[in-house]
Amino acid sequence: MRITALCGGIGGARFLLGLRTLGHDVTAIANTGDDMTVLGLRICPDLDSIVYTLGDGVSVERGWGREGETFRVRDELAAYAGSVAAAEPLVPSWFGLGDLDLATHLLRSRWLADGVSLSTVTQWLCERWHTGIRVVPASDDRIETHVRLGDGSLIHFQEWWVRHRAQLPATGFDVQGAAGAKPAPGVVEAIMEADVVVLAPSNPVVSIGIILQIAGIAAALRATAAPVVGLSPIVGGAPVRGMADACLSAIGVATTADAVARHYGTRRDGGVIDGWLVDDADRDVVDALADSGFACRAVPLLMHDIAATAAMAHAAIDLAEGLEDAR
Amino acid sequence: MRITALCGGIGGARFLLGLRTLGHDVTAIANTGDDMTVLGLRICPDLDSIVYTLGDGVSVERGWGREGETFRVRDELAAYAGSVAAAEPLVPSWFGLGDLDLATHLLRSRWLADGVSLSTVTQWLCERWHTGIRVVPASDDRIETHVRLGDGSLIHFQEWWVRHRAQLPATGFDVQGAAGAKPAPGVVEAIMEADVVVLAPSNPVVSIGIILQIAGIAAALRATAAPVVGLSPIVGGAPVRGMADACLSAIGVATTADAVARHYGTRRDGGVIDGWLVDDADRDVVDALADSGFACRAVPLLMHDIAATAAMAHAAIDLAEGLEDAR
Repeated sequence: MRITALCGGIGGARFLLGLRTLGHDVTAIANTGDDMTVLGLRICPDLDSIVYTLGDGVSVERGWGREGETFRVRDELAAYAGSVAAAEPLVPSWFGLGDLDLATHLLRSRWLADGVSLSTVTQWLCERWHTGIRVVPASDDRIETHVRLGDGSLIHFQEWWVRHRAQLPATGFDVQGAAGAKPAPGVVEAIMEADVVVLAPSNPVVSIGIILQIAGIAAALRATAAPVVGLSPIVGGAPVRGMADACLSAIGVATTADAVARHYGTRRDGGVIDGWLVDDADRDVVDALADSGFACRAVPLLMHDIAATAAMAHAAIDLAEGLEDAR
Repeated sequence: MRITALCGGIGGARFLLGLRTLGHDVTAIANTGDDMTVLGLRICPDLDSIVYTLGDGVSVERGWGREGETFRVRDELAAYAGSVAAAEPLVPSWFGLGDLDLATHLLRSRWLADGVSLSTVTQWLCERWHTGIRVVPASDDRIETHVRLGDGSLIHFQEWWVRHRAQLPATGFDVQGAAGAKPAPGVVEAIMEADVVVLAPSNPVVSIGIILQIAGIAAALRATAAPVVGLSPIVGGAPVRGMADACLSAIGVATTADAVARHYGTRRDGGVIDGWLVDDADRDVVDALADSGFACRAVPLLMHDIAATAAMAHAAIDLAEGLEDAR
């Protein structure tokens, strides 16, 4: 079966790890809105989390970066920043630039500078990591999410997320480059030709939400013959991981499993999903969502381990197949 | 006293360490012909050897790179090169790209990309390293020495020097960019306004020789009112360190202390030096060089330690002052 999954970084990566065990032909379409440039190096946190996770190279504790990572270069950059005024603004002290990670950034930046597309670069990185599933950036064009603060100023999403732990109240997101960005080669095809499309339990605003802003991707979700099902990243009124609540409140959406479903909306009403999985803890919202046209089920949605995650992926596909049968 | 020293990397750096102890106002003009770009990073081996050495950060054993260096990034790049075909040509396995060193390269490359000149970048790096003497690249323009091999092909000097240990017979050097390169700001002034100009015991072909190819620098050496004295990098018919013999034979110059002096030539005959120090082991060439118009003395020229090196620097200045008195 051809499964196409839209996903962000850490949560998306873990979901893919479970999905991969089911043996389907999987294409992951990854958010690139978190990407940033540090010291001329192009860094793609979500793509790297996915590739490292699928390649068994990720730091299990952190969920991002490499297992056994060291920070020699970062510490040395900090020493420069502490003694040379011109170095200080170039070196974001809050950014965890690991030594092993840096090798990835150096190669990617070189390839991009040579005119290689991000999707080809990602394919080459996957060769090293034997991801087993296709990983495609949502777009080869540069997209960068900036966060609008209360005073109207903008800061890069990574600075808001990593440095400020999403604690600076945000009033919105400015997705620079999204307006002119095209889906990467294969993205629309992967959606149109899939048997099932899945929205991973990733951040609905700054991960899946960014992917949906790229011209043609939301339209493909609406047009595909495949059922589209999502898994709630919100369990019991809180994000399972990360700070999606800060993102949701910035766009005026409640941090609940059903509010996120309604934010995505049903395809029949111009939204992007048919089905929605909520956690058992949120089973009380199933009926109301069903009344609103969502195919909805409550299942365990905590990715404790690969088996639990595989069961979630299986439940999503099962929900989707039920929708196909019902047609 | 204002001393201006032309120098290459490791030997030049050690010489400066001795010269610095004499308490003069020193400007070092450094070779940039060894510079290369690896993975988009601009690497300046001679400048870095000088700055790290003067900043007490150099690896004492190697003479280049940092003390306590690690090679995490290099090893990780090699892992990519071993598994991704497109990575292999980007990662020179023979190049010792250290983690601490990389921080310098990242900052320098960023600054250069932002339009900052190499001489300003070098000044900023000196701020961190408290070099105590001015270090100026010979040129802010990009110069790269390539080595012509027997079959007429060219390889980058670093590849010839580091990878092949200068063992591939060379037939000459192609100094790309030298023709159009201008001296960096302050270089000509440092030569013209010096009380003494010293040619460090550096490689006369690929270090000092490259500096002399930059338009205006050799002319400044001929024009300055200051005496110009050199120290032989050849002792007893062999280079003290490095593989200057391979460079000298490529340009048809014998690997002897007197042949190098004659290669530089006396200023009165259109050359660039007035005086020349040879090692005690070469005292038999002093008279012949004197007959040819060189002020020449034999002194110990092995840089065993800083005191021995300071004595060499002192002897060079003393020789120069004798020349001034004789005018």
